[in-house]
Amino acid sequence: MTQQQTLKLAVVRGDGIGPEVVDEALKVLRAVADGALDVQETDFALGADRFLATGDVLTETDMAAIAEHDAILLGAVGGDPRDPRLAGGVIERGLLLKLRFAFDHYVNLRPTTVHAGVTSPLAEPGDVDFVVVREGTEGPYVGNGGAIRVDTPHEIATEVSLNTAHGVERVVRYAFALAARRPRRHLTLVHKTNVLVYAGSLWQRTVAAVAQEFPEVTVDYQHVDAVTIHMVREPSRFDVIVTDNLFGDIITDLAGAISGGIGLAASGNINPDGTFPSMFEPVHGSAPDIAGQQLADPTAAVLSVALLLDHVGRSDLAAAVTQAVEADLADRGTTRRSTAEIGDAIVAAATARTTTA
Amino acid sequence: MTQQQTLKLAVVRGDGIGPEVVDEALKVLRAVADGALDVQETDFALGADRFLATGDVLTETDMAAIAEHDAILLGAVGGDPRDPRLAGGVIERGLLLKLRFAFDHYVNLRPTTVHAGVTSPLAEPGDVDFVVVREGTEGPYVGNGGAIRVDTPHEIATEVSLNTAHGVERVVRYAFALAARRPRRHLTLVHKTNVLVYAGSLWQRTVAAVAQEFPEVTVDYQHVDAVTIHMVREPSRFDVIVTDNLFGDIITDLAGAISGGIGLAASGNINPDGTFPSMFEPVHGSAPDIAGQQLADPTAAVLSVALLLDHVGRSDLAAAVTQAVEADLADRGTTRRSTAEIGDAIVAAATARTTTA
Ligand SMILES: CC(C)[C@H](C(=O)O)[C@@H](O)C(=O)O
Ligand SMILES: CC(C)[C@H](C(=O)O)[C@@H](O)C(=O)O
Repeated sequence: MTQQQTLKLAVVRGDGIGPEVVDEALKVLRAVADGALDVQETDFALGADRFLATGDVLTETDMAAIAEHDAILLGAVGGDPRDPRLAGGVIERGLLLKLRFAFDHYVNLRPTTVHAGVTSPLAEPGDVDFVVVREGTEGPYVGNGGAIRVDTPHEIATEVSLNTAHGVERVVRYAFALAARRPRRHLTLVHKTNVLVYAGSLWQRTVAAVAQEFPEVTVDYQHVDAVTIHMVREPSRFDVIVTDNLFGDIITDLAGAISGGIGLAASGNINPDGTFPSMFEPVHGSAPDIAGQQLADPTAAVLSVALLLDHVGRSDLAAAVTQAVEADLADRGTTRRSTAEIGDAIVAAATARTTTA
Repeated sequence: MTQQQTLKLAVVRGDGIGPEVVDEALKVLRAVADGALDVQETDFALGADRFLATGDVLTETDMAAIAEHDAILLGAVGGDPRDPRLAGGVIERGLLLKLRFAFDHYVNLRPTTVHAGVTSPLAEPGDVDFVVVREGTEGPYVGNGGAIRVDTPHEIATEVSLNTAHGVERVVRYAFALAARRPRRHLTLVHKTNVLVYAGSLWQRTVAAVAQEFPEVTVDYQHVDAVTIHMVREPSRFDVIVTDNLFGDIITDLAGAISGGIGLAASGNINPDGTFPSMFEPVHGSAPDIAGQQLADPTAAVLSVALLLDHVGRSDLAAAVTQAVEADLADRGTTRRSTAEIGDAIVAAATARTTTA
């Protein structure tokens, strides 16, 4: 990839703690970009507030405008869950999932590391380094359910998981290629093949077939229930995990918890074909209960910027962000810092590094 | 319930470590029953060996014979996962799930405690005491999937989650009644209502409706991804969790891991109506890799006997089993004991208690 000199960035701060963590992530982005990359930000004021004010979650016009950008940085979406006007995940589905599906983000990349300076109940720094490659456009997330006789004793509600050879094969191939580039070259398929036999068989056959193209990658399989046990007891055994949309959702929150906190977990929703802008976001949600109080840790948002920079071919700047975060983490005392204080400290670490380099 | 004097017990040792752990569980059962309950055991040699030898997993004749019993004790099912003749969970589905569905085990009860003497990476003994009430007869487990164009680039595989007002309401009511009998009287619904909106809405409305009948029970809701974080970070917050069949499968393995090991996790597949025999089994699987080597911990199977005794109205004997297990756990050194040695130690603890009582 040629080294990108300008970055047209769509910014969706979103709901809850989203705006606070994005503000810090942008500070860090601007600091490392300074003189090296021309970042052109466009703000999209989307989320619960906009929906409650206008009735729109994401219009065709919004979509077309966002599509003009090189990448998307998203904070978090989802308003107060007790607000009945926001029931059924109207923002999550209408905004976040709609972007993932419309922009064909078929790779949802979620790395897990225990950074130096981080205390995890279950792992030592350096011990854990795996990536979950979560499928992003299929499975039980397709919105293909229904209900009859609603609100009667005879109600029946269904949810359909859709899985295609096309969809499974492309994400499995991405995961193998990633595993082949990593030192340990290992791939674990996570599913529930003993119960979900049709989808499970498709995933299993696809992994077996693509494995032929990557003889250097070792492969194993684990049921999604069993994988939770291994993640708690021996997270160091994992390298690349490839899995379905829903299983990936569940095990990456767990991965965040065991690696020292969901406040550190970054993710990329990737369209590897480059047809659409990819989208980068912290794994955590909008946490409306602590919003606006400068209590959120912006590190996951900052690390999402690193994934973004990597994706647009600026791994030099991505490394600068990651190193600044690591410097800050190694340095964290026990004093509670505000969202902005953490952002400022990461900026300071990034600037120090840039200046002395 | 009148105190049962005889117990007609169907025993399914099953595969892998199943026979070993059931042997120990039966030793303990016989020891506590001695003179107090006439246990009449019938062995059913079901599992992978029988299937590979005869082609039968579970016949109508088997089912009718098992149905004549008061309860079922099951070890573990599922042969060597690498054996292609056992692919697609043929034993798990044909035996375990068939029994759960045919005998209408709509409550899958999975208690989690950190017993004294147990070291858990995440919790102190006494800290954690919750029960997962997992729905057992619906959801994505109904086997309602399919595939077209199999083995072509156009393959499509589906899995359908079926949820009925009837099925959800009865398990939710059971969970509320259980919560009402426990000191903390709290119930947590776990689902993924922001994505699986039809099923999620049915579960949420049902919990809201049944809550009216139990004003003394406090209620909250958590997404299945977020619940994994809370289980790792603060497992003591849970009391009764009610959830869907698949989510329950996943979070109870996690619960086992955090509470000191899946080797201690017991479960009951309950038909509360009493129309069919209920079935008790350790949460762990058949672990073919360590089978026949006396390496398995039989404690989960023994604690499943306690749940069984409770279910048949002999909570006096159930308490004897639990206390014997707790005595043994409190006493465990670091020496590795064989499956039989652990069983014998629990028997000894049970007998000592019975004698001195
Ligand atoms: C907000 C929600 C729809 C989303 C998901 O389920 O994918 C979130 O949990 C995530 O993991 O990004
Ligand atoms: C063996 C398998 C079918 C079963 C399940 O998925 O229910 C097991 O994991 C369990 O939790 O009892």
